[in-house]
Amino acid sequence: MHSYKELMQLYASHFDQYTFPTFPATLYEPNTYFLKLGGKRIRPVLCLMGNELFSTLVDDVWHAANAIELFHNFTLIHDDIMDKANMRRGQETVPYRYGINTAILSGDVMMIKAYEELSKIDVSRISPIHSLFNKTAVEVCEGQQLDMDFEKEEQVDFERYERMIMLKTSVLLAASLKTGAILGGADSGQLELVYEFGKNLGLAFQVQDDYLDCYGGNAFGKKIGGDIMTNKKTFLLVQALEKANASELVELKKAMLLTTDEKVNTILELYSTIGIDKAVQQLKQQYQDRALQAIEQITVTQERKEPLLQLAHDLLNRTA
Amino acid sequence: MHSYKELMQLYASHFDQYTFPTFPATLYEPNTYFLKLGGKRIRPVLCLMGNELFSTLVDDVWHAANAIELFHNFTLIHDDIMDKANMRRGQETVPYRYGINTAILSGDVMMIKAYEELSKIDVSRISPIHSLFNKTAVEVCEGQQLDMDFEKEEQVDFERYERMIMLKTSVLLAASLKTGAILGGADSGQLELVYEFGKNLGLAFQVQDDYLDCYGGNAFGKKIGGDIMTNKKTFLLVQALEKANASELVELKKAMLLTTDEKVNTILELYSTIGIDKAVQQLKQQYQDRALQAIEQITVTQERKEPLLQLAHDLLNRTA
Repeated sequence: MHSYKELMQLYASHFDQYTFPTFPATLYEPNTYFLKLGGKRIRPVLCLMGNELFSTLVDDVWHAANAIELFHNFTLIHDDIMDKANMRRGQETVPYRYGINTAILSGDVMMIKAYEELSKIDVSRISPIHSLFNKTAVEVCEGQQLDMDFEKEEQVDFERYERMIMLKTSVLLAASLKTGAILGGADSGQLELVYEFGKNLGLAFQVQDDYLDCYGGNAFGKKIGGDIMTNKKTFLLVQALEKANASELVELKKAMLLTTDEKVNTILELYSTIGIDKAVQQLKQQYQDRALQAIEQITVTQERKEPLLQLAHDLLNRTA
Repeated sequence: MHSYKELMQLYASHFDQYTFPTFPATLYEPNTYFLKLGGKRIRPVLCLMGNELFSTLVDDVWHAANAIELFHNFTLIHDDIMDKANMRRGQETVPYRYGINTAILSGDVMMIKAYEELSKIDVSRISPIHSLFNKTAVEVCEGQQLDMDFEKEEQVDFERYERMIMLKTSVLLAASLKTGAILGGADSGQLELVYEFGKNLGLAFQVQDDYLDCYGGNAFGKKIGGDIMTNKKTFLLVQALEKANASELVELKKAMLLTTDEKVNTILELYSTIGIDKAVQQLKQQYQDRALQAIEQITVTQERKEPLLQLAHDLLNRTA
């Protein structure tokens, strides 16, 4: 048994050993560059944690964890093309640095490399993992497509928005945990609970992320309101558009047309009038409760659950 | 046993049944559109033929064939982005019709769907097929990257060019045959010969394709010289740049700068002076001989080889 911080260190050392071929450098160097940008490696660590919830770490879990992390990085590379993003983690994105064509192809080969890792799992265990991986990969693409579709819509109702976030973000977190749990020998009832925990943890985390973009402390000089300035659809905006009364809605839509710095404060005031800050806090609590209820029902010792509970606690109690 | 034409019909009916999910339509409709554009389905048919070379068709071969065809279509969709191609098979390409972002994502999900088909193969048989598929998929990406790299180089030597074509085109044809042969129970020696046959068939076919772009009959009003007009690196141009003497090289490079219609004739005359038409005919013959030598050594009855020999004959004796 390891704490989640120990697993983070263990996985970081493990993944540092992962290398791409050297030829053609034009294809692989962008991927090496991108992996070096780092990241929390939260998904593969969830995979390890899902495994340790039910057994000691099995050899195959490292292949599964690598597959998941490579797949996640593939999605980031392609997302950066679609979002025309120049910077990620304070560094140049792959499309910005190497061009769109290379970013497409380097991303493609990163996805194939993910499947290569997956195929190293023992055949006696691969079947359910392969199925879950494929299902989840498809869902992540569907989520990204819905996200792009929603950009073109003026208003998106809460249910559709939640579904998009679920597909784009939560299912991969949930599937990471479940993959580890499958390798740990959990039965189907337990697997469902693990998945439910991961899914709701992901939703709670996303709500919090949206919340902090508006209300995050400025302790580290982080600028708030980035999402507001670009009218990005977030849990806050989606709920505000839904909960606003007629006159608030007029004000909100007017404020969304602003491009000056006052836009952030104007919209934050409106959020406050509509009661959005409280509403999304409640929403986060709701997802969090569902996650905790799910893990509660898993029939392993409390000790085994501790690392996941600790991770959930730390993830969901950031203030900036 | 079936003739290759029968297998083409069989596979066409089979693949017609393949459907994507309906939601989100913005993600899947482009893929449905693209598959409807058709194509010869040569790779999945090679997979069926590789299988029938050694046994009757097994159930799993249809999953493998679908995986290969979906993977091939994924590469076409992404290639059309990278090549900024507006038309394919006389119809609009996916990026031209639906935009680059959708083409990236629809291509991505097409690749995942390829792996989904692959994962339907019985676990007792999946291991070598999964490995070959991954290896080949990586190679196809490498080939595409080299092709893009070569566009920026003035001159590419024959060996590097041949390697690029091998990766970009031949390995998938060879792997298609080999996948079928694995499912047919062929031993490793036979598998190597099957692969060798497919690889050289692919190279011969590509030489012929390049040749016909310059010397193809105009019976169907097809315009020749498309590759010449764009200075596309082909077996002919690569060899011409290598075999030309000093003065011919000056002439050739000068002609490559032309943009008028006379460019085609000027360069064809130079090809003739340098002896390129004969040189590439010999090259094609050389690949063809290697392919036939390989199939010759496969220890199954001549009758079993007939469909492949017939296909090779028909593929390599087009005149337009």
